[in-house]
Amino acid sequence: MRYDTITFLSDYGRSDEFVGVVHSVIRSICPEAAVIDLSHDVVPYDVRGAGLLLARSAQYLCPGVVLAVVDPGVGTERRAVAVSIGDGASILVGPDNGLLAPAVGMCGGADAAVHLTSAEYRLESPGATFDGRDVFAPAAAHLAAGVPLTELGESIDPAGLFPGVLPMHATEDGRLEAEVLWVDRYGNAQLNIGPDDVEVLVEEEDDPVEVTVRDISRVASRVTAFAELPNDRLGLVVDSYGLVALTVYRGSAADELHLEPGSAVFLSALDEGGASADAPTTPVTLRPAGGPAGGSGSTTTGGSATEESTSEGET
Amino acid sequence: MRYDTITFLSDYGRSDEFVGVVHSVIRSICPEAAVIDLSHDVVPYDVRGAGLLLARSAQYLCPGVVLAVVDPGVGTERRAVAVSIGDGASILVGPDNGLLAPAVGMCGGADAAVHLTSAEYRLESPGATFDGRDVFAPAAAHLAAGVPLTELGESIDPAGLFPGVLPMHATEDGRLEAEVLWVDRYGNAQLNIGPDDVEVLVEEEDDPVEVTVRDISRVASRVTAFAELPNDRLGLVVDSYGLVALTVYRGSAADELHLEPGSAVFLSALDEGGASADAPTTPVTLRPAGGPAGGSGSTTTGGSATEESTSEGET
Amino acid sequence: MRYDTITFLSDYGRSDEFVGVVHSVIRSICPEAAVIDLSHDVVPYDVRGAGLLLARSAQYLCPGVVLAVVDPGVGTERRAVAVSIGDGASILVGPDNGLLAPAVGMCGGADAAVHLTSAEYRLESPGATFDGRDVFAPAAAHLAAGVPLTELGESIDPAGLFPGVLPMHATEDGRLEAEVLWVDRYGNAQLNIGPDDVEVLVEEEDDPVEVTVRDISRVASRVTAFAELPNDRLGLVVDSYGLVALTVYRGSAADELHLEPGSAVFLSALDEGGASADAPTTPVTLRPAGGPAGGSGSTTTGGSATEESTSEGET
Repeated sequence: MRYDTITFLSDYGRSDEFVGVVHSVIRSICPEAAVIDLSHDVVPYDVRGAGLLLARSAQYLCPGVVLAVVDPGVGTERRAVAVSIGDGASILVGPDNGLLAPAVGMCGGADAAVHLTSAEYRLESPGATFDGRDVFAPAAAHLAAGVPLTELGESIDPAGLFPGVLPMHATEDGRLEAEVLWVDRYGNAQLNIGPDDVEVLVEEEDDPVEVTVRDISRVASRVTAFAELPNDRLGLVVDSYGLVALTVYRGSAADELHLEPGSAVFLSALDEGGASADAPTTPVTLRPAGGPAGGSGSTTTGGSATEESTSEGET
Repeated sequence: MRYDTITFLSDYGRSDEFVGVVHSVIRSICPEAAVIDLSHDVVPYDVRGAGLLLARSAQYLCPGVVLAVVDPGVGTERRAVAVSIGDGASILVGPDNGLLAPAVGMCGGADAAVHLTSAEYRLESPGATFDGRDVFAPAAAHLAAGVPLTELGESIDPAGLFPGVLPMHATEDGRLEAEVLWVDRYGNAQLNIGPDDVEVLVEEEDDPVEVTVRDISRVASRVTAFAELPNDRLGLVVDSYGLVALTVYRGSAADELHLEPGSAVFLSALDEGGASADAPTTPVTLRPAGGPAGGSGSTTTGGSATEESTSEGET
Repeated sequence: MRYDTITFLSDYGRSDEFVGVVHSVIRSICPEAAVIDLSHDVVPYDVRGAGLLLARSAQYLCPGVVLAVVDPGVGTERRAVAVSIGDGASILVGPDNGLLAPAVGMCGGADAAVHLTSAEYRLESPGATFDGRDVFAPAAAHLAAGVPLTELGESIDPAGLFPGVLPMHATEDGRLEAEVLWVDRYGNAQLNIGPDDVEVLVEEEDDPVEVTVRDISRVASRVTAFAELPNDRLGLVVDSYGLVALTVYRGSAADELHLEPGSAVFLSALDEGGASADAPTTPVTLRPAGGPAGGSGSTTTGGSATEESTSEGET
């Protein structure tokens, strides 16, 4: 079994030679394989972010070998593994630190796995800090070139692989607690909820909802395209992966609401005033709590934030 | 008709999976096509900047399919189009928002166009926010694989495509008003003028000229290479596209003069003093108006700027 | 002789079209060649940094043509050259400004070189500012396509090529003076010393050492993997190229110690107190000299830095 595509994901960045050297190592072992760079600008060491990126991409990737390296534990006992999915349709190669788990889960689970222990399929190296070059890339290239999975090391039980833990949303008293999974280049903040989770909060389909982050509340319109939003208004859009994302047209929802992956976001129905036709949304421009908007130079955060909340719509 | 090269331009950045997923979608449809990444680090939503980038590149691109996606209106009524140029030598695929227009114009205009409406050449998607993956990439790949243009949707009149508007320069009272088209990585600021436009301002070929941005004037030397300039001196160079660019050797002309695309720049002959052999150029180090150089803590901008202008050369 | 791989290094960045246009020019001349991007995010004009990057990568690159362009002198008399190494196994193409020298040295020296003067293997250009596109890329592509080296211009003596100067370390009174060669994406600072150079400083293998940068001293543990370090501790690791690097686990050694390429770093044995088993390392968190840690608002730097030094371990 040979593979003609290797999809490559890392946190190597582009300013050093890491990505290019890995390409070169692959080409020297398996020149027939095409290498597709998925991303190398993942935040350094961000195993969770890279794992989610890979899971989002999985259904669009060409079958073949996936080489994924975000590896803060390089050189320690964390295992280097190769994991077969889809009865060998694809093989994921990387550290066993949870990076591969979300994609493996998306694709129906692993059907076989090996610990990459065979010295003959590694490069010799003076140091143990660049397993992408010395362990993972050679393994990926040899797999693409037809070396059987079981040649690369001892078989291990896929059930023992490091699991990926995805945050669950919860609903309490009609309030939906969600979490930011991903902030994209444009500042859209993908949440761990689908459109159905939002629909049960509201009476009419596509009603706006109240979005609360820390002590700041905003009305968010429901839109199907970014450009449907007036400038500076907050929106909820079903994104290209079918999940709900917070968005600001030509702005950054993440910057406006100070969101990052892992941030908690609460969604609920608007109370009567907020839902009035006159004020379906409020501008998102935030002022620092206790700043000029808070009056009297107060340094408390609660007061001014409340003044900016959706209760404004009622006064 | 098949095409073996797809040139890909977007504002997707590299930190998310967008570029890699588009590559993967193309490869799954047309594995024979080579994909050349022109740039993906265009400023988000900068349709004009990306359109100029594509026009600058056009004469150097391999014939084939061009996939260009800078698309703030994704999901709205703006049309997704494919435009044939050079009697089908190349086809440009992207949103009909002016992005393609400068390149189409550079290449002699469009000879055919379609609105990409055929559902069978799109990917199904849960959301309408990633047409690069769902609409444009499949269209580009199918075109490369030999699907005729007219299969991809209804033919439209190329004359009805969204036009590209390029800024014209103007001359008034011997003063040439130009505009910054592009600031490159090194801080060179390309203007919308050619060397002939500068030549008519001066008496002797290659005479320096006066450059004015807002209320700051500088003498700019005429050079043919960046390294001909002394450090910190402003120069005018004929760039690799045959247009005139402002440059500072090993510095950034854009940073020094606070230029960005769209900034107005005025060029004129030096007055007698400024053109003296002793002071052919002045250092470009700028101080904020009203700062220490302006004396007496004044907050007016005119005064101090004048002090820094080329009239310095006369004292 | 044909070459099927072109490895491409530059300081072009990715936001402009430079890299993509060079790819396109190569493909139009030699479509069979694969182009591997080594890096394009070298600091603009950083000839030394790019030369070291290329030398580090050299042993991992596929044989073929190397196209390297960091060229502040573009358009001036600096020569454009092609240099053969390994009896023609590979050919390096670039400006003769020292960029190629470290890699040529690593690979056993040059066996032939030409000055790229043949007009027929250049692109015509309206300006002289983009030799990557107009001179170097065509030369690389024609070499890959089988044009003999000597066709590209007049032969020159390889001994006359611009030399690369690498900093030597020195030892004086048991104190090793090293220099930072490279700061990678993760903030690891590679020094111009090997593990043997450190070993002679200490009594027991793997003993920690004292690291001094300017007037700040720290204890650095000896580790073989980044993750062996407690958070915020400074370590010395043998990196993937066999040289010694300063590292902070999940932090940036370069940021903590204000290091950049060229910074001087001194290494020495610990004095008795510092080497005690109880205090093998000290936290790396640095405070600005004269800040809160310095007490009494002092603005002298020596005092507070001493307070933070390894002598802390003795109290």
